[in-house]
Amino acid sequence: MTITTVGLDADDTLWHNETIFRLTHDRFVDLLADHADRAALESRLAETEARNLRLYGYGVKGFTLSMIETAMDLTGGEAPAAVVREILAAGRDMLGHPVEPLPGVDAALAALSERYRLVLITKGDLLDQERKLAASGLGDLFAAVEIVSEKDRRTYERVFARHGTGAAEAVMAGNSVRSDVLPALDAGAFAVHVPYHITWAHEVAEAPVEHPRFGLLDSLAALPGWIAARAT
Amino acid sequence: MTITTVGLDADDTLWHNETIFRLTHDRFVDLLADHADRAALESRLAETEARNLRLYGYGVKGFTLSMIETAMDLTGGEAPAAVVREILAAGRDMLGHPVEPLPGVDAALAALSERYRLVLITKGDLLDQERKLAASGLGDLFAAVEIVSEKDRRTYERVFARHGTGAAEAVMAGNSVRSDVLPALDAGAFAVHVPYHITWAHEVAEAPVEHPRFGLLDSLAALPGWIAARAT
Repeated sequence: MTITTVGLDADDTLWHNETIFRLTHDRFVDLLADHADRAALESRLAETEARNLRLYGYGVKGFTLSMIETAMDLTGGEAPAAVVREILAAGRDMLGHPVEPLPGVDAALAALSERYRLVLITKGDLLDQERKLAASGLGDLFAAVEIVSEKDRRTYERVFARHGTGAAEAVMAGNSVRSDVLPALDAGAFAVHVPYHITWAHEVAEAPVEHPRFGLLDSLAALPGWIAARAT
Repeated sequence: MTITTVGLDADDTLWHNETIFRLTHDRFVDLLADHADRAALESRLAETEARNLRLYGYGVKGFTLSMIETAMDLTGGEAPAAVVREILAAGRDMLGHPVEPLPGVDAALAALSERYRLVLITKGDLLDQERKLAASGLGDLFAAVEIVSEKDRRTYERVFARHGTGAAEAVMAGNSVRSDVLPALDAGAFAVHVPYHITWAHEVAEAPVEHPRFGLLDSLAALPGWIAARAT
């Protein structure tokens, strides 16, 4: 097989993200500890996020708005202003959080970029994702960056047609089976799952372990070898 | 001169946007009328927005967060929860607002799309801008859509290189001198200012009326004629 293009997810594939969301969840639970227990808070927040996804899309700004809405709901509209201010501050902290590539990512991308066109394909807030890529120091390794509102089959068809030689000659790698693996396979690409140690509930899905174009790796460091073993 | 590509701004160029922000401003002023007068509210909100722009970027979600922050500041942290809920609702209403092309836009784009590659170039929230383009019914007329975090010279160089034959053979049209006209001229493109009846304070700038590649039109309906008169 010929491979010309490698698509890479960003959050939790190249750098930590869900960990930072989890820390903010903890802060949120502490803030509202007088009003509900952790399980109730978490499930209300997840409901609010899911309901708002259609309007807000992915990213920190929508998450911050959903935290404020949940705080209002859970306190019967009696959330102290200090709680709202704390949530706003937590959101801003997330948007200013330092970015450090996960172990092995730097070397793996450097090796891949010598043989393939690298394309970053990610959801989230436009400005925030650009900031993280710049802060990661990985920006120069990518031939193209696509920040998209949804990752479905058509997204991968379009991106790999625009920046490569089509999905059939592309590999997509990322930590989400639902967003990075299944729709990329559906588009005709190869897809490699590199699990992160926690997964946002919204992204959970079963890995297509029997699929002939699917791979499972425990680190991005193994991706150059995985592709080399398959490429002609 | 040869023209192959026409870039078009979206908000307040193809459809109303600032009008909807103004309506939300009015709602915000009413909500906090007991705490400050309109002038004070408007200036505090503008300050908050400007300060947050670096973190939030452009769009409705960041604007909603800035309204909540301003309400907290102005009430010394005593804003009633009902105010926060109302602001959240106002933000959601903006994200669900119907979209109708401005008069003449439909016919102008249809005419332009027969001779040139049309590229939509806009700031704002990714998902919201995609929603508005879909709701406008204009999506099929565009060869490409670029939702960007900032409109500067490099943005126009990159977009017109990617989707056309370079900035020198492109025209950019929009309602903002600061974002649509000056950086496009700087990139080497032609630029046409089509003023909207109100302009967000952040976007105000002086038009380069003496520039040989600049045009000023009172409606997008006049754009096909303006280009035809210059194209060889």
